Amino acid sequence: MSGKILMLILDGVGDRSVKKLGGKTPLEAAKTPNLDRFAEEGQNGLMDTIAPGIRPGSDTGHLALLGYDPYEVYRGRGPFEAAGIGMELDPEDVAFRCNFATLEQGKIIDRRAGRIKERTEELARAIQTIDLDVDFEFEKAVEHRAVLVLKGEGLGGMVSDIDPHDVGTEFHQAEPLEDSAENKKTAKILNDFMKKSIDVLSDHSVNRDRKEKGELPANIILPRGGGKVPNLDNIEYKHGLISGAISGIPLVQGVCSLAGMNVLEVKEATGGLDTDPKAVIDATVEALKKYDFMLVNIKGCDLSGHDGLSEEKIDFIEKIDSSLDRLNEIEETYVAITGDHSTPVTIKDHSGDPLPLTIWGEDVRTDDVDKFNERACSKGAINRIKGGDLLNILKDLADRTEKFGA
Amino acid sequence: MSGKILMLILDGVGDRSVKKLGGKTPLEAAKTPNLDRFAEEGQNGLMDTIAPGIRPGSDTGHLALLGYDPYEVYRGRGPFEAAGIGMELDPEDVAFRCNFATLEQGKIIDRRAGRIKERTEELARAIQTIDLDVDFEFEKAVEHRAVLVLKGEGLGGMVSDIDPHDVGTEFHQAEPLEDSAENKKTAKILNDFMKKSIDVLSDHSVNRDRKEKGELPANIILPRGGGKVPNLDNIEYKHGLISGAISGIPLVQGVCSLAGMNVLEVKEATGGLDTDPKAVIDATVEALKKYDFMLVNIKGCDLSGHDGLSEEKIDFIEKIDSSLDRLNEIEETYVAITGDHSTPVTIKDHSGDPLPLTIWGEDVRTDDVDKFNERACSKGAINRIKGGDLLNILKDLADRTEKFGA
Repeated sequence: MSGKILMLILDGVGDRSVKKLGGKTPLEAAKTPNLDRFAEEGQNGLMDTIAPGIRPGSDTGHLALLGYDPYEVYRGRGPFEAAGIGMELDPEDVAFRCNFATLEQGKIIDRRAGRIKERTEELARAIQTIDLDVDFEFEKAVEHRAVLVLKGEGLGGMVSDIDPHDVGTEFHQAEPLEDSAENKKTAKILNDFMKKSIDVLSDHSVNRDRKEKGELPANIILPRGGGKVPNLDNIEYKHGLISGAISGIPLVQGVCSLAGMNVLEVKEATGGLDTDPKAVIDATVEALKKYDFMLVNIKGCDLSGHDGLSEEKIDFIEKIDSSLDRLNEIEETYVAITGDHSTPVTIKDHSGDPLPLTIWGEDVRTDDVDKFNERACSKGAINRIKGGDLLNILKDLADRTEKFGA
Repeated sequence: MSGKILMLILDGVGDRSVKKLGGKTPLEAAKTPNLDRFAEEGQNGLMDTIAPGIRPGSDTGHLALLGYDPYEVYRGRGPFEAAGIGMELDPEDVAFRCNFATLEQGKIIDRRAGRIKERTEELARAIQTIDLDVDFEFEKAVEHRAVLVLKGEGLGGMVSDIDPHDVGTEFHQAEPLEDSAENKKTAKILNDFMKKSIDVLSDHSVNRDRKEKGELPANIILPRGGGKVPNLDNIEYKHGLISGAISGIPLVQGVCSLAGMNVLEVKEATGGLDTDPKAVIDATVEALKKYDFMLVNIKGCDLSGHDGLSEEKIDFIEKIDSSLDRLNEIEETYVAITGDHSTPVTIKDHSGDPLPLTIWGEDVRTDDVDKFNERACSKGAINRIKGGDLLNILKDLADRTEKFGA
């Protein structure tokens, strides 16, 4: 009988030797009885999400884990952000992440408009009245963030950012990153959009109110990270799996959504350190009754890694560990526990260091590893695989693969 | 001086943890002093024949072991079966496996014509008189099996089976699997062939005699598994090796034959559990005096795996092991012992679980492994490789590779 599959992705969990931890990694320093039990009962190894030494993004990393070749399908972050906030996308659309920002005397003085949180919906409605040479959609996202989708044919996805990624400087003009009529068209429309965003926002009542309260106005939209919507083979067609996903991050939700997975709403998966892993695991156990395959991303470790906080990372790892009891309830399921990339506290960014990987389930060939961490797993029976092979391995264990040949 | 190369392929030898064996695999449970000695004296690792998690067929698996990319060259099983029974094939030919079957009132009531064994040569001669729009060859194979080869240009290889793979149902009409004039042509000819097979067989004296004896008549030919003959670079040209092969399975013989290897007749390699491994090893030792490279496939474990019989699998592994004494005699030879795929008794089918691999020969870098099995080999010096790399590794050890670059 075919088994089910769970990929539990601890975002940014991998790390390096940390001096102040006596040379241990946060995973090694943390007390993780549940994770260690999975390691002891399962088979273990290292995983390069994309390839050795390649730093995955959250988008490209999850693409690889779902069996897509990110070098082939990835065309920028914008479309995943758009899908992540639930926008409907067509294959020829071009999507951009945007910030509400503050422009003063021709210079960007705050890329987040004083971290504006409220009434961005009103500003978005004003933006939606802009008249462009193509159809477009514009939606606010969390806080100062928004998404722009240019629709229609003949648009290129390779244009530079208007966002200068710096303050005290002028905004940039979008330029084609590769010379083509399509990219030129997109750049022209994007520059037009940005100018018109200034027109409709500068004297908007929301901004008048903000100025009165001494807050920075959100008087320009800065698009960045543009890209065409990738044409991903639906995961049900590609892998024969009815699939669900849980994540607190729109970018990961967007990847899963564009892959054709059902993105489940779990409000306790916040994408922050206040995530409640227990609630996420509860939702996962329930979802596995319905879905063949669940991808569950728990953010948290990644944030501590970016901030360089090893103790905080240890605490969050232990918080995750203590939430895993209920996984004992699941039956006939092959579980992979790993990350999407390392986020070493010494680097404060994603890194290409390989990740620990445990595969657990009935009849797997176990090994001598009894701890879930980078060093222990490196001695396991899996040795070292690529992230792009993980779903194939799990499908094979769950007896869900077709023989290639006779 | 260049060494010789032996690939000893224990068909389907890999397995998973088996509960009734106390969590051991059949290889772990078996007493294998000879295999263990090779492991102890050699270097060890795991091998994914095609790629992690991919379930190889016997044909695609052996293609990979011979250094061909099965994703590139594999175009169906038919041509290998044809080559396996010694038919001469040209590159544009399209070959099909066929069954002699029984048709009654428009329905297939037995796909094997009562497991017909005798006088199929007479039936084949009748089939050979059929008049088609292209040249063709038709040869009986073992028991109820036969092979059809359509010859000439403009034929496609992608057509559906006429064999319904079920009884009590009508036979199918061949249809193009991809829309092309070539596939349409093949489908039309195949449907014509099948109808005419009924014409020449229904009142054939062999079938009249069978009916009189109360046996099912072989009154229709059911083709399946069609494919164009792949254009494999000859292994002598590709690898610079004068090569021989021993196998009891026509499919594997066919792969080796189309690769340009000399397929040696060893009647004790039966393809069944009655194979005499000692005779196979004797023939191998003799053949290595003549050939640079021998691929030797011993079936048996695979059959027990398909039947889910762990004790039988253990017994056959021990039977192979006890036959390996004479391998001590060979000199200046690098020996790889592995499988073409796992066939876990818990799955009763091929699986993508990686295989144990031992490489033995003069001056190889040994390791601490002293048992030939899945778990022990996973700790070896080879780590985890792909099957497509194995022959290159062996050639390199045998000092038979050219430097790439300067």
